[in-house]
Amino acid sequence: MAETGARRVRGGGGSARRAERTAVSFETARFIERNIPNFEILNEEALSIIEWNAETVLEEIGVNFVENPTALLRWREAGADVQGERVRIPRGLARALCATAPGSFTQHARNPDRNVEIGGRGLVLAPVYGPPFVRDAEGGRRYATIADFRNFVKLGYMSKWLHHSGGTVCEPTDVPVNKRHLDMLLAHMTLSDKPFMGSVTEPSRAADSVAMAKVLFGDDFVDRNTVMTSLININSPLTFDGIMMGALEVYAQANQAAIVSPFIVGGAMAPVTVAGTLTQVLAECLAGVAYSQLVRKGAPVIMGAFVTSIDMNSGAPTFGTPEAAHITYGAGQLARRLGLPYRSGGAFCGSKLPDAQAAYESANSLNMALLAGVNFMLHACGWLEGGLVSSYEKFVMDADQLGCLHGLAKGVSVDANGQGMDAIREVGPGGHYLGCEHTQANFKSAFWRTDVLDYKPFETWEEEGARDTEALASARVKKMLADYQAPALDEGTREALADFVARRKSEMPDAFL
Amino acid sequence: MAETGARRVRGGGGSARRAERTAVSFETARFIERNIPNFEILNEEALSIIEWNAETVLEEIGVNFVENPTALLRWREAGADVQGERVRIPRGLARALCATAPGSFTQHARNPDRNVEIGGRGLVLAPVYGPPFVRDAEGGRRYATIADFRNFVKLGYMSKWLHHSGGTVCEPTDVPVNKRHLDMLLAHMTLSDKPFMGSVTEPSRAADSVAMAKVLFGDDFVDRNTVMTSLININSPLTFDGIMMGALEVYAQANQAAIVSPFIVGGAMAPVTVAGTLTQVLAECLAGVAYSQLVRKGAPVIMGAFVTSIDMNSGAPTFGTPEAAHITYGAGQLARRLGLPYRSGGAFCGSKLPDAQAAYESANSLNMALLAGVNFMLHACGWLEGGLVSSYEKFVMDADQLGCLHGLAKGVSVDANGQGMDAIREVGPGGHYLGCEHTQANFKSAFWRTDVLDYKPFETWEEEGARDTEALASARVKKMLADYQAPALDEGTREALADFVARRKSEMPDAFL
Repeated sequence: MAETGARRVRGGGGSARRAERTAVSFETARFIERNIPNFEILNEEALSIIEWNAETVLEEIGVNFVENPTALLRWREAGADVQGERVRIPRGLARALCATAPGSFTQHARNPDRNVEIGGRGLVLAPVYGPPFVRDAEGGRRYATIADFRNFVKLGYMSKWLHHSGGTVCEPTDVPVNKRHLDMLLAHMTLSDKPFMGSVTEPSRAADSVAMAKVLFGDDFVDRNTVMTSLININSPLTFDGIMMGALEVYAQANQAAIVSPFIVGGAMAPVTVAGTLTQVLAECLAGVAYSQLVRKGAPVIMGAFVTSIDMNSGAPTFGTPEAAHITYGAGQLARRLGLPYRSGGAFCGSKLPDAQAAYESANSLNMALLAGVNFMLHACGWLEGGLVSSYEKFVMDADQLGCLHGLAKGVSVDANGQGMDAIREVGPGGHYLGCEHTQANFKSAFWRTDVLDYKPFETWEEEGARDTEALASARVKKMLADYQAPALDEGTREALADFVARRKSEMPDAFL
Repeated sequence: MAETGARRVRGGGGSARRAERTAVSFETARFIERNIPNFEILNEEALSIIEWNAETVLEEIGVNFVENPTALLRWREAGADVQGERVRIPRGLARALCATAPGSFTQHARNPDRNVEIGGRGLVLAPVYGPPFVRDAEGGRRYATIADFRNFVKLGYMSKWLHHSGGTVCEPTDVPVNKRHLDMLLAHMTLSDKPFMGSVTEPSRAADSVAMAKVLFGDDFVDRNTVMTSLININSPLTFDGIMMGALEVYAQANQAAIVSPFIVGGAMAPVTVAGTLTQVLAECLAGVAYSQLVRKGAPVIMGAFVTSIDMNSGAPTFGTPEAAHITYGAGQLARRLGLPYRSGGAFCGSKLPDAQAAYESANSLNMALLAGVNFMLHACGWLEGGLVSSYEKFVMDADQLGCLHGLAKGVSVDANGQGMDAIREVGPGGHYLGCEHTQANFKSAFWRTDVLDYKPFETWEEEGARDTEALASARVKKMLADYQAPALDEGTREALADFVARRKSEMPDAFL
C-alpha cells in the first residue's frame, strides 16, 4: 500500500493512464500571489504596545494546558514556570520558540498542479468548515448527511477560484461520530484532487488521517512533505485542551501543518475592545505555535485568528462588522512580524438565508481578508447562519466572488499595453473604444467575469423569470453536480483507501457522542 | 427675501422658536474623519507614469470644449493651443491652474450642525442620484414621481449615517423636465436640513438653484459661503459639452462647489486597461478643474471619478468588480497628489433586485471607497440596476451599512481602556468576559449595531415569518416614512421658496424633453 498513491497516477500503470485520458479536468486557478500591498491599520506604537502586553499576559497570567502532562513537561523543560496546569512563559521565550516555524510551506495535493504555497504574499482559499446543517433553495434547512458532504466536496472540486478542498465542509450527522472522519477523508481523497484537511476531534482520528494520507501519497512522501493542514482551535481565553493539543501533537510529529487558532466571540471570550482582543489573540497564538515547535522543531504551523463581534443584546456573534475588520487587519500585522503564515477571514455572515444580509456581511469579510494579508482563508465559501449551516447556493455565490479577490490581487499593470496610450491617441475626444485595436487585443482578459450574477437588460431578465441571486445560484448548483466527473485515481489506491476505511470502521462500535 | 433663511431659524422670531421647540430632531452622525490610512495600490513609478501620460494627452491630443466660445477664449488667454473646439494644454499648465482650488471646503447646511467638510481625511455620504425608476417590495418597478422624490428626501433626512441630502434622488418624471429642478430643490430645502446639490441640466437651472439657495440662506451668506455641491459630468472621452460647462460656470462664478467627474464605462469611453483609464480620468479632471479655476480662481471643486467595468459580452456596465476597485484606489492617489477633494464610490450594483448580487457588489464598492480615501461619496445608498432604479429597500439597507464605514474609519484605540489588560487579568484562563467590569463599561459603544439586519436565533426568526433582508428593509421604510417629521423652518422662508417656485413655473410653458 505504501507504494500506491497520487504520484503513481502520473507515472503509473495502464489503468492509471486510461483513467487520466478519460477524466475531465476542471480548471482551477493557481493560489493567489498578491501584487498589491497589505492594509496596515496599526502603527508601530500600537503594534509595540500589543506585543508587549501579549508577553505580559504569558508571563504574568499564563495559559492552561489541560489534561496534558506531557505538554507540561515539555514547557517545564523549555524554561516555563509550570504550576498545576498553568504555564507561565517568560517574556521572549514563546517568540523565540516560534522562530523555528517556517514562514511559508507547500501543502501537496495528489494532483501536483494543485499544490499550494501557504505564507508570504500568497492566499489559499478553502471552503466552509463545521456546520451541522445544510440548506438549499428547495429542501430548506436540515441536518447534514454524508451525501451532502460529498456534494460539497464535488462543488469545491469544480469551483475554479477555490484552491483547497477543506475539511468538515458539513458534519455528516448520519455517520457515527467516531467514524465520520474516515468517510470525510475518503470523500476528499477520491472525489477531489485538491489539497485537504485532516481530522482533529481525537488524537486517534488525527492518526487515522495521517495513515490514510500515507495510503494516498505513499509513506515516504508523507514523511518528507506536508499533505494536510488541520484546524487546531484554542479554547479562548488562554486554554489549550488535551484533545485538540493531542491532535496537534500527532500532526506536528508527522510534519503535517496545523492552524493554531483562537476561536473568539469578542466580548465573551476576549476583551470587548479591539486592542485587548488582539493582545489575547497574540498571546494565545504565541503559546500554541511555540508548543508546536516544542513537539517538533520546524513543524509547519499557521497563526490563526477567528474573531467575531457580538450583538450585546442577544449575545449572538456578528459578522462583517467594523470591529471584526479591525481585528483581522491587526492580527495580520502581528502574524507578519512573527514571520508566520496567517489564517483568518471567510465569507462570514449571520443571515439565515443567502440574501442581501448574507452578501453584505460576506463581502465585507472577504475584502478585509484579502487586504489584511491572510494566507489561508477557511470558510471562503458556503458559510451561512453564523456557521451553523452550509448553504449550497451560497457556496457557489461566494465561490464566484472569490474571483474578485483574484482580480484585485493582480494589481495594476503599467507596462506599455497597460498604459494604453495608443488607444487614447487612436480614439481621441468624442470617440469610442469598443472597436479600437487595444480593446480588441485585451478585452478577453481585461475584466473579471462572473459565472453566477446577472448582467442582462431588465426586460430579458424579466422574461427569463426575474430570478434573484439565490435562484441563479440554485440553477448553477444543479448544473455543476450534474456535470461532475471524478478526477482520475489509481484503482489500487482507491481500493486501498476503501479497505482502510472498512477495516477501521469494523474495529470500533458506532458512537454518536 | 434676502434676509430670511436658515440662519434666522436659530436666532429668529417667535414663530421660528415655536417651530424649533415642536420639531423632532433626528440624529445624524457627523461626517467621517478617518483615523485609518488610505490604501495605496499604485507605487511611485506607476503614479509618475500615469501623471506624465495624462499631461501628454492634454498636450498632444487635447480636449474638446463644445459649443462654448467663451471657454475657448479663456483657454487661449491662459496659454493653451486652441484650434476649432480642440484645446491642447501645454504640459504643466493644467496642474498649475488646479493649484488655486481649495484642498478642502465647508458645505453649509441650513442646520449648521449638519455642515460638512469636504476634503482632507473626511468622507461625506450622499444618496443615489439620477434614476428614472423606483422600486419597492410591494409596488415593483415603475417610473419615479415627485411623491417618490419627496419620500427619498425624507428617508435621507432620517438616515443617521447619511450626511447629505443629495440631488436627483430619483427623476420626478411626472413633473415637466424644465420645472423639475424647482420641485426637487424645494423638497431638499424644506423636507430636510442636510446639505444638498443644485441642478446642472441647463445653465438657467443652475442659476435658479443659486437663486433659491439665496432665498433659503440669504444673499450675503451664499456670496460668502458654499451651500451647494453639484455634479458636472465630463463627456468622456475628453469632451466638455456646453451645457454642463455652462452650469459649472454659473456655480464657479457664485463660489458654489462642483464635482468635475468623468462618467466612464470602461472599455467603451476609456481604454480597456486600468492604467489607461486612470490616465484619461486624470487628463479629463485636470482640464475640467483647471477650467473651473479659469472661471473663478479659488472656486471649490472636487475631482470625480465615476468608472464602471463592462461585461464585454453584452456591453452592460458592471459594478463591484476588481477593475473598478483598482481605478477607485488609483484615482484617489492621483487626486491627493493634486491636492483636491476626491469623489468616487457608492453602493453600486447591476442587480435588478435588492438581493445578494446587489449586496455583494455594493459592499465591494463601499469598502473600496472608504479605503481609497474618497471625500464625497454620491450614490452611497439606494442605487439599483446600474443606476436606473432608486430602491426604497436598498436605500435603508445601504444606509445601514454606511454605519460600518463609520466604525471602520475610527481605527483602533490603544489607550489604557482599549488595551483591556485589567479585563484579561480579571478573567484569566477559562473564564468569560461578559460580566467583567471592562465589558460592562464599554459594551454600549464597543460594537457597531445594525438597524436592519437580523441577528436572532433561527427559531425566533422563523416564527417571525422567516423574513429576508428585503422584507426587513421594507418594514423599516414604512416605519421611517410614518415617523417622519419635517425639520423646523421659518414660515417666511418657506413661503418665499414656494413663491419663487410658483413664479418661475408660471414663466415657462411645460416641456417634457
